[in-house]
Amino acid sequence: MSEQPRFELYGFWRSSATYRVRVALNLKRLHAREHLVNLDAGAQREAGFLAINPLGAIPALIDRAPGQSAAPITQSLAILEYLDEVQPAPPLLPADPAGRARVRSLAAMLVADTHPLITPRVRFYLAEQAGFDAGAWRGWQTQWFTTGLQAFERRLAQEGHGAPFCHGTVPGLADICLASILVVMRVFQISVADTPLIDRIMAACEADAAFAAADPRRQPGAPQAV
Amino acid sequence: MSEQPRFELYGFWRSSATYRVRVALNLKRLHAREHLVNLDAGAQREAGFLAINPLGAIPALIDRAPGQSAAPITQSLAILEYLDEVQPAPPLLPADPAGRARVRSLAAMLVADTHPLITPRVRFYLAEQAGFDAGAWRGWQTQWFTTGLQAFERRLAQEGHGAPFCHGTVPGLADICLASILVVMRVFQISVADTPLIDRIMAACEADAAFAAADPRRQPGAPQAV
Repeated sequence: MSEQPRFELYGFWRSSATYRVRVALNLKRLHAREHLVNLDAGAQREAGFLAINPLGAIPALIDRAPGQSAAPITQSLAILEYLDEVQPAPPLLPADPAGRARVRSLAAMLVADTHPLITPRVRFYLAEQAGFDAGAWRGWQTQWFTTGLQAFERRLAQEGHGAPFCHGTVPGLADICLASILVVMRVFQISVADTPLIDRIMAACEADAAFAAADPRRQPGAPQAV
Repeated sequence: MSEQPRFELYGFWRSSATYRVRVALNLKRLHAREHLVNLDAGAQREAGFLAINPLGAIPALIDRAPGQSAAPITQSLAILEYLDEVQPAPPLLPADPAGRARVRSLAAMLVADTHPLITPRVRFYLAEQAGFDAGAWRGWQTQWFTTGLQAFERRLAQEGHGAPFCHGTVPGLADICLASILVVMRVFQISVADTPLIDRIMAACEADAAFAAADPRRQPGAPQAV
């Protein structure tokens, strides 16, 4: 595709939040040029990226469509809601308020309650201030991934949803967030047992090209074998 | 008000997430009956509350309006978006997609990036597994409140917003989330210095009766002097 893409996405290959945006763009067939911000090298704090996004945060999405501000949009959930508003089809949320609330609540269980605990700044603090070694950090990661996914699985079972996706027959916001947790767990080689409903949803996601193309292992910057 | 209220809100006096819902209901002049779920006594894990919300999570909102499912809605951001959809006036989000994205992103900086780090389950894990005493926990709380609020202040300054509210002249989703962090910091007697824009927004919020009436210290269950 030689034309100028509408969107510029600043992200990183193994970033769970970048993955969410990548999947949403793919589902909506929106084209973005993706820029690698190498978190391992501290590129998010360098002048080159701060000129794009003074917050130094990825993912950051710029919409170059006429009439849009071209200011970077940050925070994956805000970006996903934005994409759903400017390109409503296919929708990431159901049409009814109660369904929308359920899907947003499922997403928040993972994006708000689970993922922020496993970020590099938390790892740095625990290593520096609490003497966490690699084993203690792995215990911490495992604790919160397990807590988050077990609660998610229990909820799917109680509410009788989860076939083939979190809220019906098409993938949406909750599926994107669920898959984003599972793909980084795979990078870290952490797994949680006895989550059959989640496993079935993840299989449905991985059979969808929009999710498969967003896999961290397939992005520029990823090691050859993770 | 003797008529049956439309909403039932299950929450706790000092819960930051419950406060968010309380403010949104007040702003929209929606009446809810609030039920105290005493987190200090473990009431969220007791059969009485699990019969209401099998997830055992607060806040949980039930909408008894005809045509609504009466299933509990969980996760504060999902509840706020729901209230904005079923009762659009006054709006919690601006009308334009870029403005909506900015407000949702500001909210996520606090509700997703900051608050989940300071919850009781994290405190319990750090005490049990990493030997955190009261001083170490206070250092942890202070670290993440400070990181979150300083980033928020820097962003307001860079983007030239923040008068009198986060995104213009009426309070909305970002203001609710900002105030929800500041009111619990007050309960914990933690403060962050040199945040003049945040201080100005908080003063504007506190001058609004919808926020003042939601203050944790004014709720049933709160100690007489916090």
